[in-house]
Amino acid sequence: MKKYVYLFEENRYSEKNLFLLGNKGVQLAEMSSIGLPVPPGFTITTEACNLFYTNNKKWPAGLESQVFEKLKKVEMKMKRKFGDKKNPLLFSVRSGSYVSMPGMMDTVLNLGLNDETIEGFAKSINSERGAWDSYRRFLNMFGDVVLKVPHEEFEKILSAKKKSKAVKNDTDLNVNDLKELVEEYKELIKKKTGKPFPQNPKEQLIKSINAVFNSWNIPRAVSYRRINKLREDAGTGVNVQTMVFGNLGNDSGTGVSFTRNPSNGKKEHYGEFLLNAQGEDVVAGIRTPKPVDELKKVMPKVYAELLKVYDKLEKHYKDVQDFEFTIERGKLFILQTRAGKRTPAAAVKIAVDLVKEKMISKETALMRVKPEQISAILHKQFDAEEKKKKEILAKGLNASPGAAVGKLVFTAEKAKELHDENPSLELILVRTETSPEDIEGMHVAKGILTARGGMTSHAAVVARGMGKPCVAGCSAIEIDEEKRIMEVKGKKFSENDFISLDGATGEVFEGKLSLVEPKFSADVKTLLSWADKIRTLGIRTNADTPHDSIVAREFGAEGIGLCRTEHMFFEKDRIKAVREMILSDSKEAREKALTKLLPFQRSDFEGIFKAMHNLPVTVRLLDPPLHEFLPKEEKEQEELAKDMNWTLDKVKARVNSLHELNPMLGFRGCRLGVVYPEINEMQVKAIIEAAINLKKKKINAMPEIMIPVLGHVNEMKLMRELVKNTAEKTMKEHKTKINYLIGVMMELPRACLTADEIAEYSDFFSFGTNDLTQTCFGFSRDDAGTFIPAYIEKKILLDDPFASLDQTGTGQLIEISVKKGRKIKPKLKLGICGEHGGDPSSIEFCHKTGLNYVSCSPFRVPVARLAAAQAVLKQKKK
Amino acid sequence: MKKYVYLFEENRYSEKNLFLLGNKGVQLAEMSSIGLPVPPGFTITTEACNLFYTNNKKWPAGLESQVFEKLKKVEMKMKRKFGDKKNPLLFSVRSGSYVSMPGMMDTVLNLGLNDETIEGFAKSINSERGAWDSYRRFLNMFGDVVLKVPHEEFEKILSAKKKSKAVKNDTDLNVNDLKELVEEYKELIKKKTGKPFPQNPKEQLIKSINAVFNSWNIPRAVSYRRINKLREDAGTGVNVQTMVFGNLGNDSGTGVSFTRNPSNGKKEHYGEFLLNAQGEDVVAGIRTPKPVDELKKVMPKVYAELLKVYDKLEKHYKDVQDFEFTIERGKLFILQTRAGKRTPAAAVKIAVDLVKEKMISKETALMRVKPEQISAILHKQFDAEEKKKKEILAKGLNASPGAAVGKLVFTAEKAKELHDENPSLELILVRTETSPEDIEGMHVAKGILTARGGMTSHAAVVARGMGKPCVAGCSAIEIDEEKRIMEVKGKKFSENDFISLDGATGEVFEGKLSLVEPKFSADVKTLLSWADKIRTLGIRTNADTPHDSIVAREFGAEGIGLCRTEHMFFEKDRIKAVREMILSDSKEAREKALTKLLPFQRSDFEGIFKAMHNLPVTVRLLDPPLHEFLPKEEKEQEELAKDMNWTLDKVKARVNSLHELNPMLGFRGCRLGVVYPEINEMQVKAIIEAAINLKKKKINAMPEIMIPVLGHVNEMKLMRELVKNTAEKTMKEHKTKINYLIGVMMELPRACLTADEIAEYSDFFSFGTNDLTQTCFGFSRDDAGTFIPAYIEKKILLDDPFASLDQTGTGQLIEISVKKGRKIKPKLKLGICGEHGGDPSSIEFCHKTGLNYVSCSPFRVPVARLAAAQAVLKQKKK
Repeated sequence: MKKYVYLFEENRYSEKNLFLLGNKGVQLAEMSSIGLPVPPGFTITTEACNLFYTNNKKWPAGLESQVFEKLKKVEMKMKRKFGDKKNPLLFSVRSGSYVSMPGMMDTVLNLGLNDETIEGFAKSINSERGAWDSYRRFLNMFGDVVLKVPHEEFEKILSAKKKSKAVKNDTDLNVNDLKELVEEYKELIKKKTGKPFPQNPKEQLIKSINAVFNSWNIPRAVSYRRINKLREDAGTGVNVQTMVFGNLGNDSGTGVSFTRNPSNGKKEHYGEFLLNAQGEDVVAGIRTPKPVDELKKVMPKVYAELLKVYDKLEKHYKDVQDFEFTIERGKLFILQTRAGKRTPAAAVKIAVDLVKEKMISKETALMRVKPEQISAILHKQFDAEEKKKKEILAKGLNASPGAAVGKLVFTAEKAKELHDENPSLELILVRTETSPEDIEGMHVAKGILTARGGMTSHAAVVARGMGKPCVAGCSAIEIDEEKRIMEVKGKKFSENDFISLDGATGEVFEGKLSLVEPKFSADVKTLLSWADKIRTLGIRTNADTPHDSIVAREFGAEGIGLCRTEHMFFEKDRIKAVREMILSDSKEAREKALTKLLPFQRSDFEGIFKAMHNLPVTVRLLDPPLHEFLPKEEKEQEELAKDMNWTLDKVKARVNSLHELNPMLGFRGCRLGVVYPEINEMQVKAIIEAAINLKKKKINAMPEIMIPVLGHVNEMKLMRELVKNTAEKTMKEHKTKINYLIGVMMELPRACLTADEIAEYSDFFSFGTNDLTQTCFGFSRDDAGTFIPAYIEKKILLDDPFASLDQTGTGQLIEISVKKGRKIKPKLKLGICGEHGGDPSSIEFCHKTGLNYVSCSPFRVPVARLAAAQAVLKQKKK
Repeated sequence: MKKYVYLFEENRYSEKNLFLLGNKGVQLAEMSSIGLPVPPGFTITTEACNLFYTNNKKWPAGLESQVFEKLKKVEMKMKRKFGDKKNPLLFSVRSGSYVSMPGMMDTVLNLGLNDETIEGFAKSINSERGAWDSYRRFLNMFGDVVLKVPHEEFEKILSAKKKSKAVKNDTDLNVNDLKELVEEYKELIKKKTGKPFPQNPKEQLIKSINAVFNSWNIPRAVSYRRINKLREDAGTGVNVQTMVFGNLGNDSGTGVSFTRNPSNGKKEHYGEFLLNAQGEDVVAGIRTPKPVDELKKVMPKVYAELLKVYDKLEKHYKDVQDFEFTIERGKLFILQTRAGKRTPAAAVKIAVDLVKEKMISKETALMRVKPEQISAILHKQFDAEEKKKKEILAKGLNASPGAAVGKLVFTAEKAKELHDENPSLELILVRTETSPEDIEGMHVAKGILTARGGMTSHAAVVARGMGKPCVAGCSAIEIDEEKRIMEVKGKKFSENDFISLDGATGEVFEGKLSLVEPKFSADVKTLLSWADKIRTLGIRTNADTPHDSIVAREFGAEGIGLCRTEHMFFEKDRIKAVREMILSDSKEAREKALTKLLPFQRSDFEGIFKAMHNLPVTVRLLDPPLHEFLPKEEKEQEELAKDMNWTLDKVKARVNSLHELNPMLGFRGCRLGVVYPEINEMQVKAIIEAAINLKKKKINAMPEIMIPVLGHVNEMKLMRELVKNTAEKTMKEHKTKINYLIGVMMELPRACLTADEIAEYSDFFSFGTNDLTQTCFGFSRDDAGTFIPAYIEKKILLDDPFASLDQTGTGQLIEISVKKGRKIKPKLKLGICGEHGGDPSSIEFCHKTGLNYVSCSPFRVPVARLAAAQAVLKQKKK
């Protein structure tokens, strides 16, 4: 019979076991094996969970018998029995998939308590109060998670009880109060479910395991997987573990800790604990816990043991660990461990430090940092000078670094709604505390502010994972969710007010602070220097101005992969000449207007070439349809008419005649060059003259002239001729020589399919994957917003293909081009200049496909450097 | 040394020689070999012509010596010498490429005459008048063709001479008149060129050969090649041939003849001759010639010889021949022969007759008719009843059959200009006589009417080749080109007047006559029945109505390959419900509107399925963006607002919200189905219910449901599910079963590239090559008009890719799909339903690529049947 259930000690960590047992299960197995004090128990495999789903929510044959067989072994080890009246063994039942999904799935604690075992349990732990507290907690949790009685109903009864007993804290309730609560909870369950609370421990266990299986597919878990791109088919393992109790009095407690500071990466103890409490009290952020080092004062012996645990975990796992512990009457238990989620800055520092500490190799360090984390580090900061002068409105915990400015929004749903209406709206989500249901709202917010909860609260953990600024536990603020008002120091803020958060300091400011570009830390520089040694892909940037070029070069760009000449056309001093050129009736008039534009273009190129001295600069010739440059408003058209000495009607007629039904597929790119060669001739002349002028100043320009929107080899023959003739004529006039290349922007399927023909006349190909995605899918980027969200929701597409390259379809066109192009010219230079050039998974694809470089926006350059190195390492691994 | 010059008898006809010697040269060689009385001479190869061009218009080494060496051999054979004073040999110099380009290139006759040879020539032909007439013709022709002195200048002198001598015809001029003309012509040449007319015969010959070489690239020849898609790199051969004279008196003459009637295909002598004339008099249509059979009366002996020639030519060439003959003092010479251009109807009749006469095989017959000729046969005719009642305005020669109605236009340039402004404008080109310069104007006109010229005049020959109606030699009309007025029987017609032409009868009518659909002749039916036996491709039709379906079935359609459901949406009684559906706020409201549409759709499908009983019908689900159905005009929007009980603003807002920047790449096709599944559900229900209703009446509907604008396998999974669920639910409700298929309209590159994935969920693929061309090229069909003409002019594209499938690019996507799709499903049904489905070269591609069927508009079905058979035969040949 298939084995569905493993005792912790029956396994060790392995890739295979990670998927079989889930992350938590395999970590429990591993921890048991390295001698950490783990409460014994067993793991039900993810396979069983998947069979549960395929089998109409029934257990596979053999699972039940295996569960109770392993349970018996645990009973033997613990010398206690499940359901025993005198000395009952209690269990926790927890979920655990191959990747930790904190708080997303369900958990049941204190399983095994009932009206009969409660007395024996009380005796065995020598605390009647502790036992009844556990029982009422169990009823609440089991009622909520397994029997679907809303948590709020239990909370209402608890609050009423505290009120009637005139106490403030749960801990102030006495045994009798708790006994009353137990009875009232049981009543509630009976009333809500129509059946009495199940007293049979075996029934409790089976139902709880089912609840965990079911929680794999509850909406928040599905959302989380979608946002984090986790596998939908993985299933969850179920960990059934002996309960230990942190709530047996002040010699007991519970806590969570990281082996290093997950916020800044420093090698220091980082964590919190609560005395006389169970684990969920810390994680849920309901009571504010104390820093872990304070344990030294309260329980020095336990603290000493904990120090050994820190050491053992890091030495064994060679990474920062995030673990939960419970102290039961002075005895330390480790309940779980996992790789600690950390801020991007911490991720880099920890990776670099671990190399310095000789714990990991540089290669491992490079794989430890996600490229997106490098992007997050580049997140904006507040202007320091401005901030100094600004009064702090409130201060909370510095839960996740980065600065954010936005309008207040008080619920996740509202945040999502506003975002869907206008994705560029900047929002700050303000909550008393966040819960897993808030995930999507957090995802669309620029930053998160909570009134309660600690550094490991839901809000803090999730925000760090997202690389989003978060200030948590900001107790100075009061929130009225109903009225959508936040009150701070008597001041009221509502939905139309802006606030600014600094997640690195925990400071909250009124209004909008200015944001400034961030700077690289030494650690980032170190890490990226390692990346540079490993990667084989070149990293260029898409830049249209000298300023962008300089920024990008500082970030490590090795040239420009896309310089869009038309962006220069829109500038105020030249748009008039551009319009004159477009409206010209004759070639002569057009050439006259172009003569006016030439000096502008030439000086633009000079600036860019200078910034990119000794590095290649790919200049794309005019790309967009001409009507984009013409005024749409009558007032502007009137002005233009005056300038041109035309009638308004004539201007209007010309604007209308240039109107297109599908401009994306219209008269643009090299089609303009075919019909109006003089436009491109002017551009080439400007490029070559700019290079010549710089040559005189010993600055080496390396222009690569790129022909856009090309689909046919005959276009390339013609355009190559045009560029060559113009360049040679210009060089002859100036009696000098400039090296330049002529290549193609590969952005149409036909160009890719005939890449062999086109390669003959091309020095390079640069894949314009934005347009290539449009034509490959038949999606207009401007219009696809009406259906792409539905496509992602219905899982037709896993990603927006404009954000992450569709490797199956669009990628296939690139592969075809590479194969055909290199067949003709084995050394053909190949690059990508679409938005995908800065997307890590697309970069990995480019590496695998044999491209020479990727080109992305300046701020993505460091991300691309890391991603390119990881691509090498991943390929090596395979 | 390379051989550039061949005596006629040194070669025979072969494919290779066709290209080497040109059509005329190889025919002269062949005719010489089969014993026809061909005046001796030699041919300069096309290779020499091409070297002339690559060699900066200089002759290749050796050409000159070879020319004069062969010339010497001809002299020996004729026992006369070129330039000899006593008995001079004269030559004609004619062009001839691999395909005859009638009248497009230049010719020089009577070469070798000068002030010295003229006397000897006069003696040798025993006609002083004939000699001087030849000399003045030679001066005119040499002056015009070689020395570029305009023909009109010579004409002016001739007219003045006739006036001063008070004679009407050229033949009325006496020897002295002609001698005066010669002097005046020489004066003209000297005045215009600054040099005297070259008296040296060798110089005359070399210059004439150069003139023929040069005429390969004169504009009208280039136009002709472009229109007829002839090879640009072929070059022309030059035929230098001994002159024979039809202008030596009334025992001489010249004529042209076809071995069968090229107008209706009947086996009868067809041709004309002129006594005492040279060839160009017949071809140019200046004098009206006599039917060839009248020769029997005038020269019975020559006529008897001619009968043998008819027989010999057809027996040898096994096809209709179009030959030129000259009678020199009672002796018959054949100057050239070529396959006779014929009307489409004649082409079919001749092909079928030659099979009946056991001269050719059915396969050869099928290859003899161009698919486009079948299309021409289907040209409209006038309504016979209406025509009977209509008074005939004038009657000319029935030069090219077919009926045409249009506005008058008096010059080719004007015709082209009007056509470019509005390509749907119907024009009749009216000319005194047409000339090769008129080609482009004829191309854009619906029909041609000339006042002069015979059945073999320029207008007649070209119009037949184009399959265009032509009435020639309609002497009742008088044309004032300057004033743009045509006068008939005292009535004046100008540019805004309509006339109607019947090219099959030669009748001209005032105003517009109604046109009716043509019927198949028995010969066409026979030919197509042979085609059906050979072709392997199925032929379906694109039809959206029962009427079109019936027409197509009569033309031989074997099913419907594309039934566009949205065309039905626009009909008046349903557009309201469609708009209501689109504007609905909720799914419920949308479903309510759809319920109103269902009966319309169902009854449409019933009609179509009934017409296609027992044949498959591919129904495409809703394709265009929804905004196409909404009113653009405010007035209509107001009405809609009233109907919907909405405010106008609300309607406007909704219309605006549906507006798209690039609708071609927008929210359409199956994307609509993904977001609003209820629309497609209604359509599927209508299809299945229609089939069920017919089943009750023993009519077998074979629906094939097609999903449009699909790019991803996940779309197909979803849509297949939708169709299947709806169909099954509907069948269950009606307690019956219907067989149906579910397939994909392959019209996006991504679908083609992932055809293997999609094939798993598809019963068939149908290539929507219109959209596939758009996305493959990145050309919007609606906007590409701004640059496609420039692309064709600059030879970037040889054809408009929307008219003839781009096999290299778009075709590659089809090939990829076929390969990938059939790899998964070896029997996957494959078809094409774009406009290309009716284009012969595209059909050949579909056959080669292994498609199962093509689908085209009803009137293209017969064309496709023939093209599909030819595809088989062509493949067999290879």
